[in-house]
Amino acid sequence: MTTTPSNQLWLYDTTLRDGTQREGLSVSIEDKLRIAHRLDELGIPFIEGGWPGANPKDVQFFWQLQENPLKQAEVVPFCSTRRPHTKAVDEPMLQAILAAGTRWVTIFGKSWDLHVTAGLKTSLEENLAMITDTIEYLRSQGRRVIYDAEHWFDGYKQNPNYALQTLKAAVTTGAEWLVLCDTNGGTLPHEVSQIVKDVVQEIGNREQGTGETLTQSPIPQIGIHTHNDSEMAVANALAAVMAGAKMVQGTINGYGERCGNANLCSLIPNLQLKLGYSCIGGHQLNQLTEASRFVSEVVNLAPDEHAPFVGRSAFAHKGGIHVSAVERNPLTYEHIQPEQVGNLRRIVISEQSGLSNVLAKARTFGIELDKENPQARQILQRMKDLESEGYQFEAAEASFILLMYEALGRREQFFEVKGFQVHCDLVEGKEPTNSLATIKVAVNGNNILEAAEGNGPVAALDAALRKALVNFYPHIAAFELTDYKVRILNGHTGTAAKTRALVESGNGQQRWTTVGVSTNILEASYQAVVEGLEYGLLLHFQAEKALKL
Amino acid sequence: MTTTPSNQLWLYDTTLRDGTQREGLSVSIEDKLRIAHRLDELGIPFIEGGWPGANPKDVQFFWQLQENPLKQAEVVPFCSTRRPHTKAVDEPMLQAILAAGTRWVTIFGKSWDLHVTAGLKTSLEENLAMITDTIEYLRSQGRRVIYDAEHWFDGYKQNPNYALQTLKAAVTTGAEWLVLCDTNGGTLPHEVSQIVKDVVQEIGNREQGTGETLTQSPIPQIGIHTHNDSEMAVANALAAVMAGAKMVQGTINGYGERCGNANLCSLIPNLQLKLGYSCIGGHQLNQLTEASRFVSEVVNLAPDEHAPFVGRSAFAHKGGIHVSAVERNPLTYEHIQPEQVGNLRRIVISEQSGLSNVLAKARTFGIELDKENPQARQILQRMKDLESEGYQFEAAEASFILLMYEALGRREQFFEVKGFQVHCDLVEGKEPTNSLATIKVAVNGNNILEAAEGNGPVAALDAALRKALVNFYPHIAAFELTDYKVRILNGHTGTAAKTRALVESGNGQQRWTTVGVSTNILEASYQAVVEGLEYGLLLHFQAEKALKL
Repeated sequence: MTTTPSNQLWLYDTTLRDGTQREGLSVSIEDKLRIAHRLDELGIPFIEGGWPGANPKDVQFFWQLQENPLKQAEVVPFCSTRRPHTKAVDEPMLQAILAAGTRWVTIFGKSWDLHVTAGLKTSLEENLAMITDTIEYLRSQGRRVIYDAEHWFDGYKQNPNYALQTLKAAVTTGAEWLVLCDTNGGTLPHEVSQIVKDVVQEIGNREQGTGETLTQSPIPQIGIHTHNDSEMAVANALAAVMAGAKMVQGTINGYGERCGNANLCSLIPNLQLKLGYSCIGGHQLNQLTEASRFVSEVVNLAPDEHAPFVGRSAFAHKGGIHVSAVERNPLTYEHIQPEQVGNLRRIVISEQSGLSNVLAKARTFGIELDKENPQARQILQRMKDLESEGYQFEAAEASFILLMYEALGRREQFFEVKGFQVHCDLVEGKEPTNSLATIKVAVNGNNILEAAEGNGPVAALDAALRKALVNFYPHIAAFELTDYKVRILNGHTGTAAKTRALVESGNGQQRWTTVGVSTNILEASYQAVVEGLEYGLLLHFQAEKALKL
Repeated sequence: MTTTPSNQLWLYDTTLRDGTQREGLSVSIEDKLRIAHRLDELGIPFIEGGWPGANPKDVQFFWQLQENPLKQAEVVPFCSTRRPHTKAVDEPMLQAILAAGTRWVTIFGKSWDLHVTAGLKTSLEENLAMITDTIEYLRSQGRRVIYDAEHWFDGYKQNPNYALQTLKAAVTTGAEWLVLCDTNGGTLPHEVSQIVKDVVQEIGNREQGTGETLTQSPIPQIGIHTHNDSEMAVANALAAVMAGAKMVQGTINGYGERCGNANLCSLIPNLQLKLGYSCIGGHQLNQLTEASRFVSEVVNLAPDEHAPFVGRSAFAHKGGIHVSAVERNPLTYEHIQPEQVGNLRRIVISEQSGLSNVLAKARTFGIELDKENPQARQILQRMKDLESEGYQFEAAEASFILLMYEALGRREQFFEVKGFQVHCDLVEGKEPTNSLATIKVAVNGNNILEAAEGNGPVAALDAALRKALVNFYPHIAAFELTDYKVRILNGHTGTAAKTRALVESGNGQQRWTTVGVSTNILEASYQAVVEGLEYGLLLHFQAEKALKL
């Protein structure tokens, strides 16, 4: 018999079910399988896989998972209680979750009297029977049951007696977990705290005498499931845990319907690093940032760069004095060590930067510069000059790195653009035609003249340049222009205004951003496009060199 | 004497200072002025404008604001205490905030002993003197002082006695607000709650006997300033208010360094609708969604569609029983009414919401439409069709008004563009030459062919069009293109992506924004430029008609 430590919590991930309710997110069965295995590696004990009774894709998902099962995690199908006035055994959706072939199933039922009478249009007694019949039937088929109490907090506030009766109905028929759901996301932490305390006292988390493990315990424990409509999902989950909940439901990156679910990427480090609970292993916590980005890649959503703990900006520092202080004693400016969640400290280069930022940045690219080195001051000066002209390097790290290499006399000239022309025309009432660019480039002593079309002058320029270079640098074919932003810098000076263009480029694995500034928007864009290609080549040759070592 | 109700809170917006620390966000002086005026309309009483001692752009901002002052709000400059072993009167940065010419100033100082000794490398006594000298000097110059206690929570946890001494130093020299800052964002709500209670008991929020208003009160009150590194910024601010804080600092959309600041767009409705505090007027709360989107457009960042309260998905419902249940009784599935924060319920499948919005918008332009009027539905349908193509009317009201006039059969055709050509070329090493545009326009039955140059294809197009029209509409000479923003809508599809262009135009008195969308960036820009001129003409003739009445 193993002892369950009192600080042990059970995580329950619902990225693959509630998470996919997010508007704009869609996943294939293959995507879901990849995510399930990644969550298993991360050490999440319960992974909700879908609702096979409502979604044929989810039936497939559970079948395919049987062929290639998870190592540790329990995968769980999700389903409602039987409908009013039916028999559980006759419900096709219950047959579908049995067919998923899992040890555990999650059943959700109504806690709020109003939802029973006005939503389901049935009696309060029938709703209790729906809960007991469904759980009894699933237990008779050998399943272990997690019971999700939908709209728990709203229901409890309106009619606490009835809400508690629904939980008791689940307990008496053998549900092992009672999960309190803030389905509409409107509850605040002080309310969650009080209500969870009430439930724990009334029903859950009784003393487990002999210290049985979860999987042997017949005593119901309390879980929490929160939504972010009041920007409280994570805070509410913490409040519930501090009030006695032992299971925490959430999703990776907080994906979910409307404003999302509780974000496991914030919950896990808060629970584990700040409150001393045990959720996943330390070596798994170190993978959190990577897991977050993995999931965002698989579902094809841009990662939130400002996400707590796992965002690219989460440990980014600006400002001179501040940066040197961070390097001396990180705890003075960072609430945790970024490495604990697999993230990195980043030094952001901007107007407010001092020399220490430049040195720190150079170091991240393997360049050791001394404070007394005149080149360091040159880089800083050059950067400040360019920023006063309107360049902005904090969003264009690739351009900053090129600048740094140039100041150090290490910038390679892969090619040289001699000039270009762009032509565009449009006839009203016809589809816009492509823009045409011609460009002259020197590469290794050869002068190349090329022309290409694009859906605008910048795309045409980019295409012509790549066409001119691809014979010399074949891997350039894999580069693409992934984003493009333009800003007029001093709006009120009208046509004399300067324009800043930011171009994001990619090679399939990495993305980088470059910047250009000019009174002519095309010249600004051209600078950024050219540096984007140059930086892509630099990355390629650096990787090649590294391989040869 | 007015009575301050006990549920009154004071909001303090720092979008223009702390918000601009967000990586990737940069604003012009013009942008900052527009945002300040918008926050003033929203009813925010304190608006932190910047740090004039550290940033020359901010000096300009305060000067320009003196020429066109805010209606209600206090604009506040931000600065640190004097440096160690200097005199306050000799500090250029303190002179800079005095030159800002405001009634209030915010001074931040160190609360954490470690930051004093290891960061500033001075003594704990000298830090107290830095606080008292600075505040005394500013008070002697007639300023009212808000004191931000930097790293308050970390400092208090390490050395509560010293931390309290720093606050007392600020109080004894006349600071009227003591703002407790969770600078590193690592504190959790239960800690915030306890520590704020300690401070209130020790120092702040004493009984205000006669019920003086804030601006007469010499008694220090407590404020809260939180960061989102633990995804707790909003929850921590609520915890502080419930423990007695009376000022809440935050930013629109939660913009800020690293993971951002407390998001006022979530804080305000939580405080006002759920906890019964009074922050802004009900009619101002109704503008919250619009203000959020306005700020995101001005700073050129995509709005977060999943943001609580103000996001496009915040009240989105998917099909089925759920939707009819929502329509029968919204409170069963929505934590607040979306209209209270100026947002809309969206039914993702049937898309039947929004008519009242169109009617309300039409009303603001003096057009009374009935709900039953089929033209109202046509406008809505056309708007939805265009939005699904990537148009966005939140920030392009002028284009929406033209669309509305068109649906009503009242859109005048001042001119018709038949086609255009643009040509640009650049020779490396030479100054970029102007772009050349030729355009063909029909005006009152005349076909006009014109050519003009500009510092880029859009400016050239705009110039050619105005040259073609100026003989017919001489006042067009006063129009100018004041801002231009471009965004690629679906970045990862590469060159097949659509582009949205927003063009801001002005006539010296007013400014208006128009939008264009196309796979070709020039076509998108051209649409927006043409509508910008058309709307300017519309305004002119409407004003002329109004004069004749």
